[in-house]
Amino acid sequence: MQSSYFFFVHKMFNCGIFIQVCRRHLFLILCNMLKVPDHQVAGHWAGDGKLGPLIDDSGKFYKPIQSDGRGSKEVHFYKSVSSYTNIPNHIRRFFPIFHGTKLIEASDGSGQKPHLVLQNIVSGYLNPSIMDIKIGSRTWNPQASEDYIQKCFIKDRETSSLALGFRISGLQIESKGSGFWKPDRKHIRKYTAEEVRLVLRQFVSSNSSADSGVDLDCTFVSTVYGGSGGILAQLLELKEWFEHQTIFHFYSCSVLMVYEKESVAKEVSSGAEVKLVDFAHVVEGNGVIDHNFLGGLCSLINFISEILTCSDVHTAKASLQDPKHCSYTNCDTQN
Amino acid sequence: MQSSYFFFVHKMFNCGIFIQVCRRHLFLILCNMLKVPDHQVAGHWAGDGKLGPLIDDSGKFYKPIQSDGRGSKEVHFYKSVSSYTNIPNHIRRFFPIFHGTKLIEASDGSGQKPHLVLQNIVSGYLNPSIMDIKIGSRTWNPQASEDYIQKCFIKDRETSSLALGFRISGLQIESKGSGFWKPDRKHIRKYTAEEVRLVLRQFVSSNSSADSGVDLDCTFVSTVYGGSGGILAQLLELKEWFEHQTIFHFYSCSVLMVYEKESVAKEVSSGAEVKLVDFAHVVEGNGVIDHNFLGGLCSLINFISEILTCSDVHTAKASLQDPKHCSYTNCDTQN
Repeated sequence: MQSSYFFFVHKMFNCGIFIQVCRRHLFLILCNMLKVPDHQVAGHWAGDGKLGPLIDDSGKFYKPIQSDGRGSKEVHFYKSVSSYTNIPNHIRRFFPIFHGTKLIEASDGSGQKPHLVLQNIVSGYLNPSIMDIKIGSRTWNPQASEDYIQKCFIKDRETSSLALGFRISGLQIESKGSGFWKPDRKHIRKYTAEEVRLVLRQFVSSNSSADSGVDLDCTFVSTVYGGSGGILAQLLELKEWFEHQTIFHFYSCSVLMVYEKESVAKEVSSGAEVKLVDFAHVVEGNGVIDHNFLGGLCSLINFISEILTCSDVHTAKASLQDPKHCSYTNCDTQN
Repeated sequence: MQSSYFFFVHKMFNCGIFIQVCRRHLFLILCNMLKVPDHQVAGHWAGDGKLGPLIDDSGKFYKPIQSDGRGSKEVHFYKSVSSYTNIPNHIRRFFPIFHGTKLIEASDGSGQKPHLVLQNIVSGYLNPSIMDIKIGSRTWNPQASEDYIQKCFIKDRETSSLALGFRISGLQIESKGSGFWKPDRKHIRKYTAEEVRLVLRQFVSSNSSADSGVDLDCTFVSTVYGGSGGILAQLLELKEWFEHQTIFHFYSCSVLMVYEKESVAKEVSSGAEVKLVDFAHVVEGNGVIDHNFLGGLCSLINFISEILTCSDVHTAKASLQDPKHCSYTNCDTQN
């Protein structure tokens, strides 16, 4: 534990980011061996003395339990998942492992606060490319307060949620030799269908960057999105469950897609993972399927399927014409 | 034509409903051989001198083209369906056949008005049981006017649309020896999940009536909902198309389910039909699937699947215990 802490400090020095860590964080790190997550792409951020999640070196993720009811709802959800025996194991694996709750020193220095102790989904990756996609054209549930409904109603219309059935809430893509490309979160959640198509291709390209003019190579498309263990197969497994499950309605919940370019380049299997995160607005399904989440999930699936289909077209063409890029301009998206 | 008219008048006399037909309608009938539909369950009603659809004896349905833009949108939709070559034939059959537009005497006596000329879906049935289900938790499209959006937003929350992903807009069930049971439209669209389950079982029972205390026999459940040509199979065919089609978004569109008890009792095949109707709010899909319609459709499919599964359970039990009813109390709807 001690040695991994020194390795962490050493690494932070090397990355040149140590100077950005304020005294309060250093104090917290020294006291708890907890740190601000390296690869958080959405949600509250514990940097700059604010309240946010922390991680440790053993693969755990500590999420502050919000006091406005949302926190207790999320705790209730994780406990429910454990108690429902009729959730199959191949579905359970989509939820982060729940290790209970714990009082720990909050990241904003406000003293000991209750935290959810969860699996740190990205702890097994060194340089993960991550996309956080909030599913559903509607992020509010019918039992919510009128104020909250109106706030969400406006946001769903302003962002891509209403039009596409989902919005990208966070994103980081490893960019060869230049760390990570992390586009502005305010911008990505308003992406048009065309921009979503582009970023989903950037996500699986070895030459992705902020420059949208680059001819994307889509090197990892078939390994990461395709195949029996790829992201599409995992999303389809989830879809199958959502077509029947009437236990929960997952409002404002996200699908997280994670993989690592270096690992894919070395191995045949992508190691790409799909997880469900953020359950502060989950309500009981009362015998009705979650048609809102299912619709949005199917929309995301269709975007990814199209990219794979186009990729097949291009692979087939490659044997004749050897095109070096993946423009997708000839893809017929209407069927 | 003349003889069929006298047969119609004769039939109306026999049914004792002739006295309800006002002079204006008699005039229209005499002039055009058009009449007010016998089996309309939703939408504007041409009775009492109001503007509404008419039918003729050749199996055509004349729908007034509304002048507020909705009418022209529906005409545009029917023309588009004809022009899109990539809509497969097994999907085309879900749309009523389009025979163009025609100027005819309007049912409200306001003179000649343009009408859509469509297939009369129920012309082949003598005593059809019909359910009209408006699909989607949201009946408004993002491009609609703010006034219209607010009006629909309230209605979707007041009715079952938001909770279930659909609402029942109209219903008639043949009731043995007592004509049709036509529950109040204002009431049925607010049905709870439990009431929807009940009415979907009433729809396929030989002893359905307004009395919800009756032990439903669910006589027609496996023939009408089940089987390779049944309603569930047809809905699943539609669903498969909606998982990929990005041409149209079908706001405020209905699934119509029709069958005839007498025919089912005589034959093995149910002759049950699923149709899509009402396209005044269809907009272009622009490369995105209709996640709103798809989600609602999947919800309806799950309700019907559950009834079939329960029916299987009861059939299996019947061989041991011979229960005469279909209580479904033991059905586990959570999975």
